[in-house]
Amino acid sequence: MANEENHVYPQTASNTIKRHRERGHYDTEAVHSIVNTAPVAHVSFVPDPSNPAPVILPMIARIGHFSGAEEASAYIHGYVSTLLFRPRTASSLPANATHEEEGFPICIAATKIVNLVLSLTPFSHSYDYRSAVVHGHASLLDPEADHEEIIYAMQLITDGMVPQRWANSRTPPNASEIAATRILKVRIDSASAKIRDSGVKEEAKDLKNAAATNNVWTGIIPYVEMLGVPLPAPTNKVAAVPQYIQDHVRAHNEAAGADGVKGLISKLVSSVFGR
Amino acid sequence: MANEENHVYPQTASNTIKRHRERGHYDTEAVHSIVNTAPVAHVSFVPDPSNPAPVILPMIARIGHFSGAEEASAYIHGYVSTLLFRPRTASSLPANATHEEEGFPICIAATKIVNLVLSLTPFSHSYDYRSAVVHGHASLLDPEADHEEIIYAMQLITDGMVPQRWANSRTPPNASEIAATRILKVRIDSASAKIRDSGVKEEAKDLKNAAATNNVWTGIIPYVEMLGVPLPAPTNKVAAVPQYIQDHVRAHNEAAGADGVKGLISKLVSSVFGR
Repeated sequence: MANEENHVYPQTASNTIKRHRERGHYDTEAVHSIVNTAPVAHVSFVPDPSNPAPVILPMIARIGHFSGAEEASAYIHGYVSTLLFRPRTASSLPANATHEEEGFPICIAATKIVNLVLSLTPFSHSYDYRSAVVHGHASLLDPEADHEEIIYAMQLITDGMVPQRWANSRTPPNASEIAATRILKVRIDSASAKIRDSGVKEEAKDLKNAAATNNVWTGIIPYVEMLGVPLPAPTNKVAAVPQYIQDHVRAHNEAAGADGVKGLISKLVSSVFGR
Repeated sequence: MANEENHVYPQTASNTIKRHRERGHYDTEAVHSIVNTAPVAHVSFVPDPSNPAPVILPMIARIGHFSGAEEASAYIHGYVSTLLFRPRTASSLPANATHEEEGFPICIAATKIVNLVLSLTPFSHSYDYRSAVVHGHASLLDPEADHEEIIYAMQLITDGMVPQRWANSRTPPNASEIAATRILKVRIDSASAKIRDSGVKEEAKDLKNAAATNNVWTGIIPYVEMLGVPLPAPTNKVAAVPQYIQDHVRAHNEAAGADGVKGLISKLVSSVFGR
């Protein structure tokens, strides 16, 4: 993805940011980076098209550009038995789907809270955040016809947890693992990111209210998602935590701590890894 | 909520955990505690009932029991102009809604990643996590008829960011703030929590594979969501960070660090607040 050319998703009725337009971003770099650094994505779909009641499942989603494909897609990983991965029959598809291959409508959302924002009034309280929403159509990859793309997606998802983990675990997957894994591929129809990074914003009349400004502390509290000390499993037989894992924990925490706690996090990491 | 009696949500087709039934929980304590400690909830609904394409919005959701109500509801906070809060007309309601007051179907999900779980094979990689999914019907509270419940929900949401913040900010809201705020009340039809806390789980045949066990480090990496050092806003006029905020940061971080980094987090907090 590093050498992927940045481009812009089309703005449609479903993905255009209407409130605070200045916070809206439609470029692939913004959308993909938010989805691909989120440990969990929330995935929504409608199980029964005759009843507009959506279901949300927490899943792992990663966006990547499979070699030879025209554009990047989102890949969602799961088990054959879950509701989301049951093969859809033509009758369960929406009326406006032309044929089964078009897939079913799906929405993927990922959100990172950056700061709690405490203002003079509850009304002005907020978060600084980075969120992405992807609208698309999903279909299952075929274990035989799409074998290479399934392997590609499994590696994308595994390395999305810890970089280089695929090469450092027992790979490639065997036949029974492939058979029990399903990858849902989501063709991205539209997408948007919304980023708020403006901290405390007060109403002018509140700033003139001395009773408020003299008594209410205002500011931000950074919300930091860090990785802790790796703990070996009871069945682990490798003595030391490998370098690529140490490097990832350090890099993750340094990036996560950029908003206000970087120095402290670095000290914390030094005390763990002795550097 | 502390003195709320624990009870169990009905198990229906939409909320019953089918894979890993042992991870399923249906009691209000499990569901409410996950939703009420999540900084963000993902909220899904179907804007156009004739097209089963769901939309997800990241929102703040809190579950609480308004005085006099028969049971707890979820409250979602937002602005009048967002898609979700546009008053629904009878024609935009699903065909199975008997009348407008029943509200529209909505799904709320909140997820906390607890550990990254690194096993011998990519197939066995996982997370330890706590997630909750709530299915319900949503309707807007009426600024006049439901004034007291709106104030209750605003306080619930504000104190959900930092306890005691409502009492320590400029309250109560004035008329224009009330007019510009909408609270969506969600009657909870069913709900479930799913909790995985089993760490590394290997296939028996992988544990017998010496080439794998001798080379692949396995274990967990705690995923810790901590609060950083509070930073005053440029417009802040209160000299010291108030005690209730210091107490919350410390309590949050001690609870968050329980899985493997508690000692380090305590040291970190001591170095910030000098105790």
